Amino acid sequence: MNGHAAFSEVRTASRIARSVAATDTALSRWADARHWFEELGHRYRARVERIPLDALNGWRTRPETGDIAHRSGRFFSVEGLDVHMPASPVARWSQPILNQPEIGILGILVKEFDGVPHCLMQAKFEPGNLNGLQLSPTVQATRSNYTGVHRGRPVPYLEYFADTSSHRVLADVRQSEHGSWFDRKRNRNMVVEVAGEVEVLDGFRWLTLGQLHRLLAVDHVVHGDTRTVLSCLPFAGPGLDTALPPGGDVFRAGLLRSCAGDGGLHGMDDILRWITEARTRTEVSARQIPLHQVRGWRRTAEAISHESGRYFGVIGVDVSAEGREVAQWSQPLIEPYGTGVVAFLVSEIEGVLHVLMHARAEPGFVDTVELAPTLQCVPRNYEHLPAAARPAFMDEVLRARPDQIRFDAELSEEGGRFYHARIRHMIIEADSDLGAGRPDFRWMTLHQLVDLLRHSHYLDIQARSLIACLHSLSGGAQS
Amino acid sequence: MNGHAAFSEVRTASRIARSVAATDTALSRWADARHWFEELGHRYRARVERIPLDALNGWRTRPETGDIAHRSGRFFSVEGLDVHMPASPVARWSQPILNQPEIGILGILVKEFDGVPHCLMQAKFEPGNLNGLQLSPTVQATRSNYTGVHRGRPVPYLEYFADTSSHRVLADVRQSEHGSWFDRKRNRNMVVEVAGEVEVLDGFRWLTLGQLHRLLAVDHVVHGDTRTVLSCLPFAGPGLDTALPPGGDVFRAGLLRSCAGDGGLHGMDDILRWITEARTRTEVSARQIPLHQVRGWRRTAEAISHESGRYFGVIGVDVSAEGREVAQWSQPLIEPYGTGVVAFLVSEIEGVLHVLMHARAEPGFVDTVELAPTLQCVPRNYEHLPAAARPAFMDEVLRARPDQIRFDAELSEEGGRFYHARIRHMIIEADSDLGAGRPDFRWMTLHQLVDLLRHSHYLDIQARSLIACLHSLSGGAQS
Repeated sequence: MNGHAAFSEVRTASRIARSVAATDTALSRWADARHWFEELGHRYRARVERIPLDALNGWRTRPETGDIAHRSGRFFSVEGLDVHMPASPVARWSQPILNQPEIGILGILVKEFDGVPHCLMQAKFEPGNLNGLQLSPTVQATRSNYTGVHRGRPVPYLEYFADTSSHRVLADVRQSEHGSWFDRKRNRNMVVEVAGEVEVLDGFRWLTLGQLHRLLAVDHVVHGDTRTVLSCLPFAGPGLDTALPPGGDVFRAGLLRSCAGDGGLHGMDDILRWITEARTRTEVSARQIPLHQVRGWRRTAEAISHESGRYFGVIGVDVSAEGREVAQWSQPLIEPYGTGVVAFLVSEIEGVLHVLMHARAEPGFVDTVELAPTLQCVPRNYEHLPAAARPAFMDEVLRARPDQIRFDAELSEEGGRFYHARIRHMIIEADSDLGAGRPDFRWMTLHQLVDLLRHSHYLDIQARSLIACLHSLSGGAQS
Repeated sequence: MNGHAAFSEVRTASRIARSVAATDTALSRWADARHWFEELGHRYRARVERIPLDALNGWRTRPETGDIAHRSGRFFSVEGLDVHMPASPVARWSQPILNQPEIGILGILVKEFDGVPHCLMQAKFEPGNLNGLQLSPTVQATRSNYTGVHRGRPVPYLEYFADTSSHRVLADVRQSEHGSWFDRKRNRNMVVEVAGEVEVLDGFRWLTLGQLHRLLAVDHVVHGDTRTVLSCLPFAGPGLDTALPPGGDVFRAGLLRSCAGDGGLHGMDDILRWITEARTRTEVSARQIPLHQVRGWRRTAEAISHESGRYFGVIGVDVSAEGREVAQWSQPLIEPYGTGVVAFLVSEIEGVLHVLMHARAEPGFVDTVELAPTLQCVPRNYEHLPAAARPAFMDEVLRARPDQIRFDAELSEEGGRFYHARIRHMIIEADSDLGAGRPDFRWMTLHQLVDLLRHSHYLDIQARSLIACLHSLSGGAQS
């Protein structure tokens, strides 16, 4: 890398750190920001009603396959997937899967006020949200959005992301979505900084990273798309000040050193080879099949669900909402059964915080394996199985002592495709001996994870969500 | 990266440079090495006979699809692909495609003799080779090879790559294969260094990188798999001595500085964002279809070919060969029509050699776009088209003056799947203004390319082949 780029990297990391530290700024006070969001939530009106799958307006079931698709041929469709993973506890299964080949944009607009970067966030409704509005990125747009298949209003602020030539791009990388619900879906995660005047529309507000970080600790406020975009910011880097103010705790010191790029247990080349090895060792074959051929699933008027009652259902909803591009529509959603848990076990190794990452295979990943949290599962799906068939570290996470738990909040998956998808997010201090002898697990630093996030196909969406949560602990502003 | 890893990286780059500089060593003199390969070639006996597709022993045409597959269900199959690329000159087409979901290992074993790393190369026959033997990696193995579906002898030296725990891994990364002939195929490219005694079997020999580089300039000697594995070696790095001996030329000085990581026209983050942008801009959809549904192709007894006579044919061959795992077999092969050209335009920018890379979409790429050479085409496929529909820079390459041409050799694609696939490899000095205003092209340094080669999905196999050729110009040993 040339000198100019290296300088600019240092500068970005330290500016980001300023935004993390700021919970009160001249532009946006913390109490006001919180009040703004609560107030909007109280005022907001929307109706989401479950309706039969056959009653979805604009959608049809293709008679030859049973697939559910939009009549325009766009948006997404519900199809079938036949999966063969010889080494997994269940070696072969089939399931419904969302197919959405379009690459969407998830974009956060950033602007400095008084030297502190602020993010333009949107309080936005989605039909699957538990609580109406969530703090979403400035822009969530699919190709259908900007080619006008919606026949709704244009997406505000999209122009900053569609043509970045006169702005500063802080992050721009395609990242995977849920590999067990989507077939090879990716979104483009963008953070774009503007210098000029930006009009703030109704429902939008400039927030600092420090404010977003405090809101992350509140259940179901910060949207999943916001979390993945935040994780792609170049948080880590040599520009970080790792000196703690008096009274700073040891955990935070280890976290800052982990971000700054101090010594990792494994070098980056070793980690890349380990991923290559995991991808080669893991045999996954996933084949598209007609939805009516998925075995063990049945379709009633209300839902497509597994005969065991586990996993998830495909349901239909009819929506009337204020302030969205189209005010009335209906669509299928995936409704997960049971609350998920995603957890990072973290540990200090020689003064530097490490995260225990899991090389995990999912049928919808583009390249076999991505790095997932230490634990990522829906515990209730394993209750009927013997202990040996449970995911590694499930007991360590679910039985952690309160003094080990550094982060614990229930957050949602995006409500545009998933209905009331609750995921408990946990960050837990643990012993660094725990990963020993497990070839699918490896301790990594935050800087290494952020380095991998410059590329596609390395970190799954759950890991990215937890990275945003872990970064939120670096500001020391948790109240 | 920690201090240890950084030190080891420096050491590897300088050891590789020693091997590049060495064309005569105590173990292996250049004249002997060349004689060894020629002698083996004269002695070698094999027979490759074209036979009708229906006469392939062990293979059958599936009646419901027309696909050609091995009766065991393994190896590979010939299927159909329906491609939609709205922005390309031909927006929609269908074609036969090879489907080989197994990830193979392409591995070169390395050992130091008298401080100079040597590569254990194999003079190996493949049925599609123009000239019998080619200098191949130590190991080329598919999963079928090591699970014994071949029912042949075990693959020699495979154990070094299957379990690397007691060896030093210099490279281990999954890279794409030909995206217009294979559906999302990847191979694992490995370079493993051993310290202990290694028995040298008949047909194998230790060669330095300097010797391999000289052989690269000879037509059809160094196998395509060797070239891709060589490209993944950490050639570049801060350990390189960029000081030239007296009389060293300016081109070589620029090349060494390009390897050492000196100033690039664009920073790495800019390049990654440019790739994200190209992948998002380019709409490619590729769908598997039955082979008998490909439009514009016809199957005769001898071949499946396009009605225009262009592109390629699918043919059958019957093979009797010495010294391969199985001495007699038959198989389908792809026979490209016309000699291909791949070329790098290179230019010095502030004393550092840059390569003009092309962000290219192919239907068989895992992630839409990879970086390809400046030019990659079969000129004869464009003769019938107007000049505007020809690939960019075709004229600059085909009409280059002799004094611009730094490398020019005709090399083959691998003979295990491709029959007499001739590709002219060229490296041509050009003006750095040439890329201006073309959003699909960008000037990059060798160090940036080598950095991307630590990851999958960035450089296509033709670019990797040319990178091996470009590295061969760094030693100054061309005679």
